[in-house]
Formats: sequence, structure tokens, C-alpha cells
Amino acid sequence: MAVRAAVAGASGYAGGEVLRLLLGHPEMEIGAVTAHANAGHRLGELQPHLVPLADRVLGPTSVETLAGHDVVFLALPHGQSAAVAEQLGDEVLVVDCGADFRLRDADAWEQFYGTPHAGTWPYGLPELPGAREALRTTRRIAVPGCYPTAVSLALFPAYAAGLVEPEAVIVAASGTSGAGKSLKPHLLGSEVMGSMSPYGVGGGHRHTPEIAQNLSALADEPVTVSFTPTLAPMPRGILATCSARVRPGVTAETARETYAKALAGEPFVRLLPEGRWPATAAVVGSNAALLQVALDEAAGRLIVVSAIDNLTKGTAGGAIQAMNLALGLPEETGLPFTGLAP
Amino acid sequence: MAVRAAVAGASGYAGGEVLRLLLGHPEMEIGAVTAHANAGHRLGELQPHLVPLADRVLGPTSVETLAGHDVVFLALPHGQSAAVAEQLGDEVLVVDCGADFRLRDADAWEQFYGTPHAGTWPYGLPELPGAREALRTTRRIAVPGCYPTAVSLALFPAYAAGLVEPEAVIVAASGTSGAGKSLKPHLLGSEVMGSMSPYGVGGGHRHTPEIAQNLSALADEPVTVSFTPTLAPMPRGILATCSARVRPGVTAETARETYAKALAGEPFVRLLPEGRWPATAAVVGSNAALLQVALDEAAGRLIVVSAIDNLTKGTAGGAIQAMNLALGLPEETGLPFTGLAP
Amino acid sequence: MAVRAAVAGASGYAGGEVLRLLLGHPEMEIGAVTAHANAGHRLGELQPHLVPLADRVLGPTSVETLAGHDVVFLALPHGQSAAVAEQLGDEVLVVDCGADFRLRDADAWEQFYGTPHAGTWPYGLPELPGAREALRTTRRIAVPGCYPTAVSLALFPAYAAGLVEPEAVIVAASGTSGAGKSLKPHLLGSEVMGSMSPYGVGGGHRHTPEIAQNLSALADEPVTVSFTPTLAPMPRGILATCSARVRPGVTAETARETYAKALAGEPFVRLLPEGRWPATAAVVGSNAALLQVALDEAAGRLIVVSAIDNLTKGTAGGAIQAMNLALGLPEETGLPFTGLAP
Amino acid sequence: MAVRAAVAGASGYAGGEVLRLLLGHPEMEIGAVTAHANAGHRLGELQPHLVPLADRVLGPTSVETLAGHDVVFLALPHGQSAAVAEQLGDEVLVVDCGADFRLRDADAWEQFYGTPHAGTWPYGLPELPGAREALRTTRRIAVPGCYPTAVSLALFPAYAAGLVEPEAVIVAASGTSGAGKSLKPHLLGSEVMGSMSPYGVGGGHRHTPEIAQNLSALADEPVTVSFTPTLAPMPRGILATCSARVRPGVTAETARETYAKALAGEPFVRLLPEGRWPATAAVVGSNAALLQVALDEAAGRLIVVSAIDNLTKGTAGGAIQAMNLALGLPEETGLPFTGLAP
Repeated sequence: MAVRAAVAGASGYAGGEVLRLLLGHPEMEIGAVTAHANAGHRLGELQPHLVPLADRVLGPTSVETLAGHDVVFLALPHGQSAAVAEQLGDEVLVVDCGADFRLRDADAWEQFYGTPHAGTWPYGLPELPGAREALRTTRRIAVPGCYPTAVSLALFPAYAAGLVEPEAVIVAASGTSGAGKSLKPHLLGSEVMGSMSPYGVGGGHRHTPEIAQNLSALADEPVTVSFTPTLAPMPRGILATCSARVRPGVTAETARETYAKALAGEPFVRLLPEGRWPATAAVVGSNAALLQVALDEAAGRLIVVSAIDNLTKGTAGGAIQAMNLALGLPEETGLPFTGLAP
Repeated sequence: MAVRAAVAGASGYAGGEVLRLLLGHPEMEIGAVTAHANAGHRLGELQPHLVPLADRVLGPTSVETLAGHDVVFLALPHGQSAAVAEQLGDEVLVVDCGADFRLRDADAWEQFYGTPHAGTWPYGLPELPGAREALRTTRRIAVPGCYPTAVSLALFPAYAAGLVEPEAVIVAASGTSGAGKSLKPHLLGSEVMGSMSPYGVGGGHRHTPEIAQNLSALADEPVTVSFTPTLAPMPRGILATCSARVRPGVTAETARETYAKALAGEPFVRLLPEGRWPATAAVVGSNAALLQVALDEAAGRLIVVSAIDNLTKGTAGGAIQAMNLALGLPEETGLPFTGLAP
Repeated sequence: MAVRAAVAGASGYAGGEVLRLLLGHPEMEIGAVTAHANAGHRLGELQPHLVPLADRVLGPTSVETLAGHDVVFLALPHGQSAAVAEQLGDEVLVVDCGADFRLRDADAWEQFYGTPHAGTWPYGLPELPGAREALRTTRRIAVPGCYPTAVSLALFPAYAAGLVEPEAVIVAASGTSGAGKSLKPHLLGSEVMGSMSPYGVGGGHRHTPEIAQNLSALADEPVTVSFTPTLAPMPRGILATCSARVRPGVTAETARETYAKALAGEPFVRLLPEGRWPATAAVVGSNAALLQVALDEAAGRLIVVSAIDNLTKGTAGGAIQAMNLALGLPEETGLPFTGLAP
Repeated sequence: MAVRAAVAGASGYAGGEVLRLLLGHPEMEIGAVTAHANAGHRLGELQPHLVPLADRVLGPTSVETLAGHDVVFLALPHGQSAAVAEQLGDEVLVVDCGADFRLRDADAWEQFYGTPHAGTWPYGLPELPGAREALRTTRRIAVPGCYPTAVSLALFPAYAAGLVEPEAVIVAASGTSGAGKSLKPHLLGSEVMGSMSPYGVGGGHRHTPEIAQNLSALADEPVTVSFTPTLAPMPRGILATCSARVRPGVTAETARETYAKALAGEPFVRLLPEGRWPATAAVVGSNAALLQVALDEAAGRLIVVSAIDNLTKGTAGGAIQAMNLALGLPEETGLPFTGLAP
């Protein structure tokens, strides 16, 4: 019997991607789809690519509409998930694609988000040491941010093995869907096409403390993170270029072996053969993450580049991967391994 | 037991898309993958998005490699399919993604392709009247061209019902993958991005006689076709804007009803609700075709716009849809209905 | 002594392009720059590419601010130009980049724009027969629409010489800047990139009667126009594919000669050598229009394709070209002939 | 009397951009234009945007063709400039857009380029301390690489003032024209659009020693450079994100003041007002460089982001800026300050 899922925030990009993946998931059935301003509209108007759901009418995002499902995905603006989750009951699996329950440090939350800290839920990045076990028994999942997914996958083997110093420098390029469907002038096609631009420079991006939290947990010492996100002229994809000073004795070979070992058995994370570098096009629409690692001996730094789809592995695919674990399903169920290229 | 398929020309865009779809097909197993210049290389180097096939080595495109499969997809330059097909045996289902067996008129073939006519195979566009039946019993399938797919789906209801005069004017925009992976200066990213340009203007494009053949068969009189293809700055997708003078007495309502009736029950072709127009983004990676129709009373013309993915419904998806029929499988098996958006 | 120009609507794309070109114009000096919602902001925030004007503060769009200039460019939403122009005085050269004074037929105006007809000003497309003379003596200029510019340049030689029947079929692709800076969901970069879509299909686009007006004046009989605009994934550029049935006796040679003759001496419109087709990239930022013509004998149609930059020749460049004539300056003064490629 | 310039390598992107700028330069006259494989073709076929030069025929790149000009621009593959320059005579101003004469360290040259070191010419980045003076008296100019231009402009004030430690980490995104017109599969539009990918990771890019040379000269100690270039889906533009650990006592205010002071009077380099960040779209086609600086106190790093057009300020515009100095012309002559946006 199918597991019934509701999706709150189904008119946005994250919610739309959850629906796209649920349509291809053999164990899931799509129940309520809800929205705020777009309630009452048909999905076909807002997500024309979800052809089989074109006639579904968006309900209001309310506990009444979301109740009675086995799984509820929340793709809401931050600050709204706690109230909904509380009323859904402990037996419902709630998967929060927003930020509300990602950070453990309440001060960091308040500094970066400006609202009271709602709490912390098991973190939906199964590849991190210990995460998979926690996800198997939870009814609450905090889906990681898209950048923290790309960066944590790139750097966790290095920090877990002590290859590098606790100062990471990260520059990441994201497709515009990472900024959502909000109507802002700088997100217009005319502005975006043909242009690269940074934002949140100097430590201000909200994903910075989340990245630091993930890396620090592995390093067993605080890792400082210099994180610069940039907006790239493409709809989807994150390319994260991450580096840190290598510790004495680390060679290109030991670095590569460390990564190969850390990623062995991971279904979705692939270390590319030497000489090949990840391109975001290879993972568009896919739950895969592609990695490559290099040691720059002259600069004394380890460079790791990762490519993911911000909406798939970086949001909705990661959410379903974690959901699979929480439902006791094989982790790969219903998730695409292939990208859509060209 | 799985049906085993080989793909010849697996390093190109059409072959890569056949493989992407076969990976998601529940009844198919991927056997040999072959190439010409790229034989000996791993697929991971040439099709990095096909993560599960990364370690597969491309064999040479030869009858020895292709023999022993239930289905053989040919994605070869035109003129090469006949020789391969002949040696494969009549019991093998051969699906030719190239042009060799599409045209019935040997003179038109020679005029547009400049080589001797190889013959005619059942035409793999199941939506055309009579096509589905022919495909159910064949071991040879000529996959339609990408433009003829988009245009024939747009105009077949109008010509089958006699709504319009036998002079069609078509302007279509295609993503660059339609031109293949060939290394030509005008296909460089620097040239393509930010630019629209026409080609084959004035009746010279090889898909012109194929379009005329499809429409003339329905009109029971020769349909002249003015076809202008244009190259658009996107990797995938075709938007075909098709029009013809309406015949007396045709109203917007009768036109719409004719289309609704002609497309009823078609799994992959959707007439959009009034007021919505197709965008290629909604069908990227999908086997769906989206259509809309309008009557321009001042100009006296019926305008039909269709959107498809040139590599999916326009090539590899259409090929698999036709293959499903020839194998006795449900026509929709393994084919995506949802596009990848944004 | 420099001619002083004010620009109303300087925060939008049309106004920004007027400023970009005025900065390169040797006879012009930039006076007031005004806006509505953005009044009080610095240009550097809204038009960061206009580096030399970064510190200019936008004033309100009012007669007080605009008075006292030799030339006033209006880049306002339609319906607002008449009131401003009236109060500026007859000796001021008013160049309206909007639609208000383009149409001669009040009924057509009201049908397509839904407001009372404001009147008709000399039409700023110098290449049309008779237009140059009218512009030399006027203090009021109606700048043509971007699509009508591209289409009229493509078809005026054919209609002036009676080469074709009075039924034109036009499909044009435009960059997104043609839709302005308005915050609409379908103009977001995430929606636009990788997608082609039509709009205003079936005769509804407001540029349709303007095209018909221009062609009918040349044909000395009403020309019906089937016009389908499409939105292309690029910031700038229009590619217009125009066709009509050829009249008996017209050959490829006579067509070509007619065009060569009609365009001889035109500074900005170039008929390309045979075998080359226009690409919008070649005219980005340029006031040039590139044309090519072909006779499709099988279809009995003349096909003309034109490429312009919708913001330059299609709006601001055309405006300045007409202004030059009205000011008695050489027509080419300050206008770029080269595009920005790649 | 006009200064006559020849351009060798006029069919490529760098050569085309030199020609575009020379067309707008009031003191220059374009003489011979030459090419290698494309000799004998008209420029209109290869550089269709250079409308006024469409009928110019490309000559062979030979000393015979290039002799007799006041200035010769060389836009040749590396390794070919020395032989040409030698034969041109000392009184001719030779401006080498290639790499041959940029590096002072012969070992670094041989390590990164694999050919014998040709020598060192005055370096054409006038903004670097001392460079302007050297350029005023030279007949030989080594035009900087595009990445070194973007990075050196971003970091020279920090290193000249000792704000940061001698370990720079740089991640830069470049438009595809940076890779030239060479026919490589990964540069096809179908591959590039919608994709970000790194290359030359780990210190292998040839611009690395050039960046290190520039920064080390200012720091008066060797600066190690970790440089990762990435290919972005746009034709033009470089966004360079540069960072280094700040030295004790440096505050956001002192950093900002240092930059403001270092850039005061620079015609082409602009420090943006606080809160605004550079986008490459603002400098497309322009010789301007836009900079912004931030101090990340938590990470202890100074972040500087610069945006340039790789073909203009990064190649041809920089070349002409340096040429102006060598010719005794005002440095800004003929160079665009405004970008082409949107």
C-alpha cells in the first residue's frame, strides 16, 4: 500500500521538485498539495512541467489540509515550519525543506535568521558520519541547505580524516532557482543571463553557520568558514570550489585514497576518475553529487570541487533520500542517478 | 526476462538520450554501446550524466558487436543504417533514429540527401492516423525527425479534419543539441549564447519533405510547406509555430473541438487549456508534447504552436514509444511525462 | 554648443539604452534623468553599466524637471506621453519611445490599447519611403515598436515593389528586455533560461496593427498580418522571420535586386551576401539591421529574415537616428554600427 | 594624422575585439588585418558584428603584411609573437595580446608553457604601481592575461598596503570567449549552457604564475596563489573572488580606505559604494573594472570581488589603454566606460 505524502508550498521551486520526484517514486502517492497566495489555482498554471498533476487544485497550507498523510513535506518560508509540524502529530513523518531546524546553536540561528530558534531535528544528509543512523528512527527531518549539501559532501572526508587545517575557503556558484520564485529585479532573466555576481559576501549568507556546524563536528574543533556564494546564469546547479591548507605529510595520493575510502559505498556521491572535473550539467535533475580533489603543492592547499543540482540533491532529492531512510525503504528508491544532459 | 538493447552511436546526443531513457525503462536491459571515433573510451568521459554507465566501454559500431540483442537502436549519420540493418536479421527490432528510412519518395530523398534511397520503414509517430497499427507488427522503425515530430503533432488534426488550406507556414526554434555534437564554429557556446539565427531558409532543410509527406497524407492532396528552422540559445527543445489559412466556416470553437477530439486518449500530446501557451521548458527531458491552437480571424489563419524536447519526444523518446508498441508493451512504458523545470 | 537632452523613464531598459547611446553621442549633453517609483535613487543602483552616470540622482517625472531641455525622450508606460508632451512647448523636440502616437487609426488604437487615441506623430523609421523627409521638420517623433521595426525593414522593399501578396506571416523571437523590467513570474531568469515560448498568439499583440499600417501604406491595399511573437532565452535581439506568397514572375534574382536597390544608401540596413544569414548576436548593441532574402520556389513564398537589437535599432537607437534628422545632424551621428560579439 | 594599426589574428575573439575598439578610437586607422587558416576570407564571414569592416579581406600573418604600420597588435597562439616582433623594427609599437612576454621568471615560463622563454616586455596593466611610467616610453607591450587583470586589480591595493598575508585564494568564473574560438567539444553551446565547471584545478592554469608575479612584486615577499578558474555559461565576463587572511589591526574601515585611496584617479577601476556588488553584466563591452571589498571578521579574511569583461579590459581594451600611454595619448582615448546591459 502506497505511502501518502502531502506537499506544502507546492507552487515554489522546492515544492515542485518534491512533486516531480514523488511522481517517479514507486512507493509514494501524492495527496494534498498546498500553497499560500496561489491556493485555489491549478498546478498546471504554476508547474506546467508536472503534466500528470496539471488538474490538481492547490489547497491552502493549513493543518486541516495536511493532516491524514503519512509524510508531509514542508517547503515554506523560514519561520513557518514549527507551528505546522507541532499540530501534525508525532507519528507523521515531517520533512522540512526549510532552514528552521537545521542549526543546533540557537545564537547562530538568531544572528543569521533574526527569529527565535525553533529547535533542531535530525539532519538529512545521510552521507555525514552518524547521520544515516539517526535518520532511520526519526519522524522529523531537517533537510540541509543546498550550499551546505554541496560543501559538506566536498569537505567531510578531509575534515573527518584530519587532512586539512580548520579554515575553509569556499566559493560556490548557484543557478537562479536557488533564489526561489520571488519577484526581485536582480532575478529577472534580462539581468541574470550573461552575468555572474556575488551576494552575501563577507560571511553574511545564512548557510555559513550551517556549513561551519557540519565541518566543525567532524574536525572536533571549530572550523572557520569563508563562504562566498555567486549567482550564475543557469536555472539549476551548484558548483562549489572548496579549499583549505593541507596538514603536513598529506600527499595527493593519501588525499585521493581518503576520499575514495570515505565515499566507498555511497550510492549518490562519486569521486570522478583522475583528470576529470565535475560539471553541473552532468547532475541536472539527478540526486548524484560529483567530486574531484586536487592537491596544489605550490599553494599548500587541498582543493575539492563538487557539483550537485541545488533542487535535487540540494533540496528535494536529499529530502526524499532521508525520507526513504526514515520509512525503512532502500535509500535509493525513486531517486534519479542520471542527469539531464545536454 | 529483460529485453536486451544495443545502442549504436552512443557517444552522440541522440544515443545518449536513448541510454538515459533505457536506464529508466523497467523492461529493458542495456547491452552493447558502440561508437565510431570514440570506440575504446569509457562512457563516463563522453556522457558524464549517465552515472550508472560511467564504466561502460564503447565498442566499435559493427555487426559483430550489435548482434545478439533483441533491439538495436541506430543513432548514426545518415546513409549508414541500411548496411547495418541488413545484417542484423529480420527478427531483431531495428530502430533507426536517423533519416534513412523516413521518406517514401525516392526523388525527394535524393534531392535533399544526395544519396540513393534506402527504402521506407514504418514511421515511428504513433499519433498519426494508422501509424500505431503499423508499428505493432514491425521489426523496423524509422524514427521521425525532431522538427517533423513537432510540426506533424501540431498540424495533423487540422489537416485530417480539413480545417485549413494546403499551404502551411512553419517557423520553428530548436535548441542546439538538434545540431548534434559536431565541432562547427557556429555551434560554439560563445556564438550561440545570446543569439538567434535561421538556417536552411527557403525550403532547403532536409526535414521539409518529411513534413510535407506527413501532412499531404492526411490532406489527401499535396500540402506545400514553407519551413524555416532557427537556432535558439538553449540546449534542448523545439517550439514550432505553424499556421495555414482556415477554410470557410471554421470557427475558433470548431477548431478547438477538432483538436480536443483528435488528441483525446493520446498519452503524450496535450492540448493546453485556453489562455495558456506551451513553453519548451515544460517538456525538457519529457516525452510530452504541449499544444495550443488559436484562430486569427483578422488574418484568416489557424495558428498552432507545439513544444517538445527535440531529444526526447523528438528523437529518443519517440523511438522508445514506437519500440514499446513493436514489443507489445504498453506504449507509455518507461517514458517520462514530466519535464525538468525550472 | 551641446544639445541638452532629458530622459524620462531612465530606470527602465529603454531609458537606460537612450542614456547609453547619448553618452557616446558627440553633440549631446545629458540633462535631467527622471523616474516614477525610482525617483530619488542614484542611477548607479539601477543602471550599474552606465558607469559615468553612477552618481546622477533620478528626479521625478514631471514637467518641471523635464522643462528647459532641447530634446526630451519619453520612455513611459503607454498613455502617459500626451500629457507630458503638451506641456513641454512646441519648440522642444519630444521623442516618444512609447506607443501613444504610432497609430493613425483611432479604432485600431482603442481596440488594442483600450484607451482614447492621443493622436499621430511622424513615425521614426527613416528607412520607410517618405519618413526621412517628415522627420527633418518635426518637433514630435513617435519611435516605432521593436517588432514593427524589425518586420517593416524586412518587408518594406517587397511591398513597395509589389513582389508579394498582401498576406504576411511573421514569427519573431525577442530577447527578454523587450518585456521590460516588470516583475512578472514568467520573466524570471529561472523560467526564461532554456525556454522558448509564444505569447499574444492569434493576432493579439499590440504591434500587429502597427505592422499592418506600415505594410499597407506601401502596398496601397490592406495587408493582413499574422504575427506571432516568441520569447527567447537571451537579453537582447529580435529575429523576425517574415514571408508572403510571391506574385507571378518574381524570381530569386529580381527579389534580390529589388532589395539591393531599396537598401542602397541606407546607413544602417544591410542585405547580407548570398548564403549568409543574420544572427542577432551580430547586432547586439548596434543600430544595424541585417537582412537576408530567399525565394522558396516549392512553397511559392518569399522569406525575409531580419535581425536587430530590440533596444538599439528597435528603440533607443532608432529614436536617436530620428532625432538626428530632426536636429539637422548627420543621421549616423553617435550611433554604433558594430555589434558586441561574441 | 591617424595612427595606423595592423591586427594579426583578426579572425579570433581577441583580434575581433581589438578591431571593435579601434573602430571607435578617434586617433586610429585600421590597416592590415591578418589570419592564419582564415587568410583570404572576408571579415564579414568571421566577424559579422564588425559591419563596417565586412568587406575587408584577411591577409596572411606575415611580416610583409604587417610592416609599414605604426602599431601592430598580435593576437596569436603563444610562442609565435617573438619571431614576428623581431622583424618589425624597433620603432613600431608592438602590442602582444598573447602570453609570450608576460613572465619575468624563465623557469616559471618553461614550467607552465613548455617552450623556451622569449623575454619580458613592459606589462600592460597601467594600474599597477610603476607600470604607467614604463608604458609611456616603450615600443613593446605585453598585454596581461584576462584572469591576472581581474585578480591583480582586485588585490594590488591590499598587497601594496600590507593588509593581508601572502597566501591568496582565488576562484574566478569566466565566460567562454576566454577559451577562444577553438573547436573543442566542451566549448559547444549544448555543453556550456546551463553548466558551470572548473578546469586547471590545483595550480595548473598558466595564469597562476602571472598572478603570483604581480602580487609578489607588491608584497615584497613571495605570495602563494591558489587559483581555480571555472567556465561559466556566458560569452563574456570574469568574476574573480579573491581572499586572503587579514593582518592584525586591519578593520573594515581601514581596508575600505586603503582601496579608495589606491583607486583614486584611476579612470577605469571603480570601487562600488558599500552594499553593492559587481556583476559582470555591468561591464560587458566596457573597459571598466568594478570592485567591492569586505572584511569577514569571523573568518579573518579580506574578500575582494572584481568584475571585468575578459575581452575588453581583460584583453583588447587593456591593450589599447596601454597603447594610448605608449603613443602619448590620453589614457582613456577611445575606450568605453559603459557596459552593454541588459
